[in-house]
Amino acid sequence: MESFDYLTEEDTAIETLGSPKIDSPVQCITIQGQEIGQFPCRNFVTEDDRVVIDNSQKYFLECFEKGKSPLSFEKAGPRQKIYFDPNKIKCAIVTAGGLCPGLNDVIRSIVLELYYIYGVDNVIGIPYGYQGFIPQYGHPVIDLTPERVSYIHERGGTILASSRGQYKTEEIVDALQQLNINILFTIGGDGTLRGAQQIYREIEKRGLITSIIGIPKTIDNDISWVEKSFGYETAVEDAAKVLRSAHVEAVGAPNGIGMVKLMGRYSGFIAASAALASREVNFVLIPESDFDLEGPGGLLIALEKRLEKRGHAVIVVAEGAGQRYLSDLPQTKDPSGNIKLKDIGTYLAERIHRHFNEMNREINLKYIDPSYIIRSQPANSNDSIFCGFLGQHAAHAGMAGKTNMLISLWNNEYIHVPIRAAVARRKQVDLVGDMWMSVLESTGQPLLKNNP
Amino acid sequence: MESFDYLTEEDTAIETLGSPKIDSPVQCITIQGQEIGQFPCRNFVTEDDRVVIDNSQKYFLECFEKGKSPLSFEKAGPRQKIYFDPNKIKCAIVTAGGLCPGLNDVIRSIVLELYYIYGVDNVIGIPYGYQGFIPQYGHPVIDLTPERVSYIHERGGTILASSRGQYKTEEIVDALQQLNINILFTIGGDGTLRGAQQIYREIEKRGLITSIIGIPKTIDNDISWVEKSFGYETAVEDAAKVLRSAHVEAVGAPNGIGMVKLMGRYSGFIAASAALASREVNFVLIPESDFDLEGPGGLLIALEKRLEKRGHAVIVVAEGAGQRYLSDLPQTKDPSGNIKLKDIGTYLAERIHRHFNEMNREINLKYIDPSYIIRSQPANSNDSIFCGFLGQHAAHAGMAGKTNMLISLWNNEYIHVPIRAAVARRKQVDLVGDMWMSVLESTGQPLLKNNP
Amino acid sequence: MESFDYLTEEDTAIETLGSPKIDSPVQCITIQGQEIGQFPCRNFVTEDDRVVIDNSQKYFLECFEKGKSPLSFEKAGPRQKIYFDPNKIKCAIVTAGGLCPGLNDVIRSIVLELYYIYGVDNVIGIPYGYQGFIPQYGHPVIDLTPERVSYIHERGGTILASSRGQYKTEEIVDALQQLNINILFTIGGDGTLRGAQQIYREIEKRGLITSIIGIPKTIDNDISWVEKSFGYETAVEDAAKVLRSAHVEAVGAPNGIGMVKLMGRYSGFIAASAALASREVNFVLIPESDFDLEGPGGLLIALEKRLEKRGHAVIVVAEGAGQRYLSDLPQTKDPSGNIKLKDIGTYLAERIHRHFNEMNREINLKYIDPSYIIRSQPANSNDSIFCGFLGQHAAHAGMAGKTNMLISLWNNEYIHVPIRAAVARRKQVDLVGDMWMSVLESTGQPLLKNNP
Amino acid sequence: MESFDYLTEEDTAIETLGSPKIDSPVQCITIQGQEIGQFPCRNFVTEDDRVVIDNSQKYFLECFEKGKSPLSFEKAGPRQKIYFDPNKIKCAIVTAGGLCPGLNDVIRSIVLELYYIYGVDNVIGIPYGYQGFIPQYGHPVIDLTPERVSYIHERGGTILASSRGQYKTEEIVDALQQLNINILFTIGGDGTLRGAQQIYREIEKRGLITSIIGIPKTIDNDISWVEKSFGYETAVEDAAKVLRSAHVEAVGAPNGIGMVKLMGRYSGFIAASAALASREVNFVLIPESDFDLEGPGGLLIALEKRLEKRGHAVIVVAEGAGQRYLSDLPQTKDPSGNIKLKDIGTYLAERIHRHFNEMNREINLKYIDPSYIIRSQPANSNDSIFCGFLGQHAAHAGMAGKTNMLISLWNNEYIHVPIRAAVARRKQVDLVGDMWMSVLESTGQPLLKNNP
Repeated sequence: MESFDYLTEEDTAIETLGSPKIDSPVQCITIQGQEIGQFPCRNFVTEDDRVVIDNSQKYFLECFEKGKSPLSFEKAGPRQKIYFDPNKIKCAIVTAGGLCPGLNDVIRSIVLELYYIYGVDNVIGIPYGYQGFIPQYGHPVIDLTPERVSYIHERGGTILASSRGQYKTEEIVDALQQLNINILFTIGGDGTLRGAQQIYREIEKRGLITSIIGIPKTIDNDISWVEKSFGYETAVEDAAKVLRSAHVEAVGAPNGIGMVKLMGRYSGFIAASAALASREVNFVLIPESDFDLEGPGGLLIALEKRLEKRGHAVIVVAEGAGQRYLSDLPQTKDPSGNIKLKDIGTYLAERIHRHFNEMNREINLKYIDPSYIIRSQPANSNDSIFCGFLGQHAAHAGMAGKTNMLISLWNNEYIHVPIRAAVARRKQVDLVGDMWMSVLESTGQPLLKNNP
Repeated sequence: MESFDYLTEEDTAIETLGSPKIDSPVQCITIQGQEIGQFPCRNFVTEDDRVVIDNSQKYFLECFEKGKSPLSFEKAGPRQKIYFDPNKIKCAIVTAGGLCPGLNDVIRSIVLELYYIYGVDNVIGIPYGYQGFIPQYGHPVIDLTPERVSYIHERGGTILASSRGQYKTEEIVDALQQLNINILFTIGGDGTLRGAQQIYREIEKRGLITSIIGIPKTIDNDISWVEKSFGYETAVEDAAKVLRSAHVEAVGAPNGIGMVKLMGRYSGFIAASAALASREVNFVLIPESDFDLEGPGGLLIALEKRLEKRGHAVIVVAEGAGQRYLSDLPQTKDPSGNIKLKDIGTYLAERIHRHFNEMNREINLKYIDPSYIIRSQPANSNDSIFCGFLGQHAAHAGMAGKTNMLISLWNNEYIHVPIRAAVARRKQVDLVGDMWMSVLESTGQPLLKNNP
Repeated sequence: MESFDYLTEEDTAIETLGSPKIDSPVQCITIQGQEIGQFPCRNFVTEDDRVVIDNSQKYFLECFEKGKSPLSFEKAGPRQKIYFDPNKIKCAIVTAGGLCPGLNDVIRSIVLELYYIYGVDNVIGIPYGYQGFIPQYGHPVIDLTPERVSYIHERGGTILASSRGQYKTEEIVDALQQLNINILFTIGGDGTLRGAQQIYREIEKRGLITSIIGIPKTIDNDISWVEKSFGYETAVEDAAKVLRSAHVEAVGAPNGIGMVKLMGRYSGFIAASAALASREVNFVLIPESDFDLEGPGGLLIALEKRLEKRGHAVIVVAEGAGQRYLSDLPQTKDPSGNIKLKDIGTYLAERIHRHFNEMNREINLKYIDPSYIIRSQPANSNDSIFCGFLGQHAAHAGMAGKTNMLISLWNNEYIHVPIRAAVARRKQVDLVGDMWMSVLESTGQPLLKNNP
Repeated sequence: MESFDYLTEEDTAIETLGSPKIDSPVQCITIQGQEIGQFPCRNFVTEDDRVVIDNSQKYFLECFEKGKSPLSFEKAGPRQKIYFDPNKIKCAIVTAGGLCPGLNDVIRSIVLELYYIYGVDNVIGIPYGYQGFIPQYGHPVIDLTPERVSYIHERGGTILASSRGQYKTEEIVDALQQLNINILFTIGGDGTLRGAQQIYREIEKRGLITSIIGIPKTIDNDISWVEKSFGYETAVEDAAKVLRSAHVEAVGAPNGIGMVKLMGRYSGFIAASAALASREVNFVLIPESDFDLEGPGGLLIALEKRLEKRGHAVIVVAEGAGQRYLSDLPQTKDPSGNIKLKDIGTYLAERIHRHFNEMNREINLKYIDPSYIIRSQPANSNDSIFCGFLGQHAAHAGMAGKTNMLISLWNNEYIHVPIRAAVARRKQVDLVGDMWMSVLESTGQPLLKNNP
């Protein structure tokens, strides 16, 4: 079980632009089917609807003993009173970072919720990520009407396009002011959310009435207090298909080795889950679990043994695994400021080739890097439904005047998480948890360490 | 939010065959990666690892005030001490009821976990559900080795085959005795689980050392204290594809109506979720929400209006919806004793045809019943991973000597649920919850009641 | 081998509106890559580019002996001289009959070829089949621009919608006159093509300058002189998936019978091909091959034997098979005037149930009718490419002033076939040809006749 | 139209081991359904069933004028008399070269045809291509029974595994002798077929009674007198999906370029067809059509213009395109002796990056190499049916004592082609044919030459 000790009550508090005084146009549900509600509106969320961060009995008892309230997050959902007048408001949506299945679903859901449920008909899309705010690039903004977004969920990618660059917070807020944006929905990963925090601070400094609502987008599934991120399950599904290809290639040639590099800069969730889904993987290398290459306990000898025993092997390597082997190469950054990972996949392929070459043993290594094929898929059904909820809850949160927060699923409930809590630490695979145990069991892979 | 009031502490207590005294062969994990554990084995579950049933702050505070412990379920997972000696044990697996994606994944996972992790090499499969226990049918049992189950997850259905019949508990327990079964893994729905309860009681009566572990199988997703059942997500995915077909047919003809009947005898989860995934449905009819056909607020007039406005319509009807319209027909039961539902799909098709015929208006109704196409699919990746965990946890529970229980996922944690708690009530779509609200929003369907 | 004796030279002659005098805007290709052409334009088709109807040596020698020229069809493709002035012309596209994968691909291809290659920017779509010509229905025509059709091939169905009705030829030609249509591209089956012939005759009578170009659309693949029709391969692919479902259901229950009804009113191509693709079918029933139900050689006894031997069976029945068993029911017609087939699928299901009921034997029959699911799919890649060529060749033919003809693929070449040749006979499965032999071999099904 | 001038009558003659004298166990079909045959067995192929190589009227008339017989190939199919006694025969199957969808389908079809139709129950598989014949590798042969091959068509690759090496013909024939093989079915490409020819000659030299039947396997579709090779359509289907990913990535970033390298060492069929299927490609580079990189007519300037106009571009490059740009690098060969192509994909990516870097313009190039993902897929339905026929006809040909030939589809008929005719020239994309014209039209790509 992860340790949540670092979180404080303050970290769970959501900021607002002011107190909501306008009656929500969301239909009040008091009666439905066989039951009659005691309270006027049973579908609205109130401020004491909160979700405890940890549903273990231990945590409960601990709080009990110490006489302290458990930490909890605000529940997402429609509020009876909202902050913004739907008739006067203008909203913007921006998508930043790499592609991820479901981006169009989230865009579509926000637009339709704002339009049909709140009556907001002034929504624009910012093209090419935060770059779209910067005048020098001259990208025109995009009108987002229900017609425009009606079928976009059937296609991968984002109709707004994206970019990875870092841009001056002041220029972005200038643009927000000029465009008169009241709610900015920002769909992006760790870097994008940190950018959103800075935008929030600049907005506060200038005293603007603009809400910043994040929807966490990380195909790596590595943002804290986010049970799963949209697109992740679709990515696992498509990654598992590629692992099947790697397996077919591996068994199809003498000493065949199928090696697949999967997404996962700091967290190996995709590699681990895809291995579990495909059931045909022998080695899973993830950033969280260091491995030796050389030596009796290292990967090369383990691979040798596997080939001797079975004649083929399948290796999955997350892009952030084994970075220490690349440390002698100079470090570079991508336009978003993310440290550019050196390519562990081609490095390993080369090392394995060299190893068996030196032994004068024929191997047939087939290396597959499916990153763009996976990122560009449309969301599967489960992700599509999930994106629908994320977009709806983002619209609810924005209309209620919440800000500097993101929409999350946590232990099966949609919640509001302050951006600062989400970016404080990175979510990683728990090396004594169910998932990794199951990976070790199903692959049968050894520790891959000379001195464990 | 569902009401959990009916559950008592007793309902959450798991029965055992005796105290586990044998050291588990599951590898003890004390150290891994960057962290060093304080306790000897960090991957074992202890008896005070329990999951609180309700993670709302309200429930927490309520318990707090009343000074009572919260209700909780035992966490699933490997125990440090087990009850059965792996070398002496014999296990059996049975699958009963209708097909559901993932059956083979669960079988595979149980067999591999028992074989590779616990060293149990005596596992058999009972063919054709409980019928396979009854001597008169003469079905031979099936040896379940790792080789036999290696690729079965790639195919839909169940390699053990299934059946729906009810059979004498005594005869079943006679067979268990004769076969010398120590753990029976029973994969089935409501009826199968009730049967398992009776088998448990008969076993207790006879003083046998046989554990009964259930894995809930319901494509309808309608078992209580089970957050989601395996195969359900795959079913939604395939159902959503069929809804897309219905939409294409609807827009392709003058006054085109695409109507799809989906699984859901008492609970409309598949219909509601598939509608959310496809985003092209106009009417969703589920058992939980009664609807009128005739009258100004009824379905027929609503459909008329929709056709006048848009020229086409898509209707999804769960098989258990609108049963009151079929009440004049005589009631029948299937071999499992389930009440046979009269066919609401063909009834509605006929009623709609008649309605527009009387108006002398051309319609083109295309009716699709994809039930078997959906049930027979292999599990998608997410379900496949899920099935893997269910099977592993079932093996852990059985080896630990637990009995009369089932494996469940609850608020993101795998737990043990006593069968009696699971079958006490049926899980249904919450008509004031997120999902149904979202269905109403995305379809725009009216209440379909003359006097709401 | 089919007998082609009925075809005369006159049947292969293509009619034209007049002699083409305008230089084609299609780019002339004289040189490319390594070769240099001897003639000015190597990509244009001339009038002596003709495709012999029969590529057997026997046919060749027969002609040789008799000193007669072999029968041949005009090759499709761009002509150096065209009949219509691209700047002054107006074209229309209509889709009629049931849905079929690839309709949108054909529409898209015609529009893009006319626009980008010939410079025709005045193309309209007639909505809802020939019904769209009839004023009383008030359907507005649809502008077909490159933007409008850009992505339509990704969705099933037809953006123009379709209908099955028969409408007065005079009214249709009135509309063509009023709309000033010079080329009508009509995408439809047997009935639609016969309608096109009548339209052609009425046009001729009135002395209009309007070309009628057909693109044969028949998911049943049953039009003569058409090697394969678009959408057919996609249909087989999806049908084969359904057969896999039927097989999974069949093996999953005691005496399980999976029965699937497939398209095929008069020709069993889909049933036969899908059975070959799935390799899990035991009985294939098609209109071309009569079968007995009762008696020692009939289907019921054969099914009994199969169940006794293997415990399950898969049956595929084309919708037009076994019509004689339904002959006592009154005959009806659909709006297009096609004789409505009585439902052989439900009839057989009922007969089989009754048969085993009388024997007091439990069976589990799962009946699947996937028609709309298959018809509504988008084209697969091969069909999509094929549709692209059909549309391009249709545009070439129309611009060259050809009329009363359709575009076809014949022995691997695109050709022009007079409509009357195509509708003279129906293409059927050759009962001594490769395909049916292979079906008999792979199913192992007996003749199913009491007195063969 | 391709030129066939180089073919002589001798090139079309099939060699045989001797005259067939044994009655075929293939069932004689004389009567079926409504027709009664005039001849005893209507399903058998006779020696004057031949398929003319060219079905153009021009070729016909040319032969007519010159008074010469047209060139033709022997028709494939069952013969009334066969050469081998099914009870005494032993057959072997070998798969060589890279993976290709449908390999398992062909294996399955040969085995089942031999077993069920001819009664041959002694069929073995040679593992790892021709390497499996060489004793030093110690690979055990594989028994191929109906049970073993029953479901193999559902998985990609080949259950026999493959290899690319060249091995001594003498050693291979030694093994054939030792194993007592009467028919060797060899499934492979150009190199494998040339190897088969050498094996045939060695067999002849030694006077052995062993038939060599080839089934052409080339995912590139580049073997002469083979209308299409199995797996090619499946490859196009999967390649088209990857092109869609490339398009999504291209439009998703500022100046996005999606570049995909596809199979096609000497022939660009896959690249061209996939581009036609996806409809979203702007540049198609194939080996048959040389292109300039630099200069006003070159690719780099054309790409610049495209990005300026539309902001994104999709490029498809066949692996054998533009090899002259790599000519300064040393030439290497793979184990089969094929010249190893230098990687044009990474070369182009690097050149494009450098070009825009020098202009100081941001581009986002996403390079995808899906080769192994495509090769490892199972066959789609159409290919699966096709493979079934290829395998059946291979069995017929082998049993009839034919040798040194391969099974082919030509203008819609299955035929026998002498290996030497097939390997004499390579099939390539016709640069003035329909397919390439259509690619040029749909991409709008310029000639990419400075001096055309």
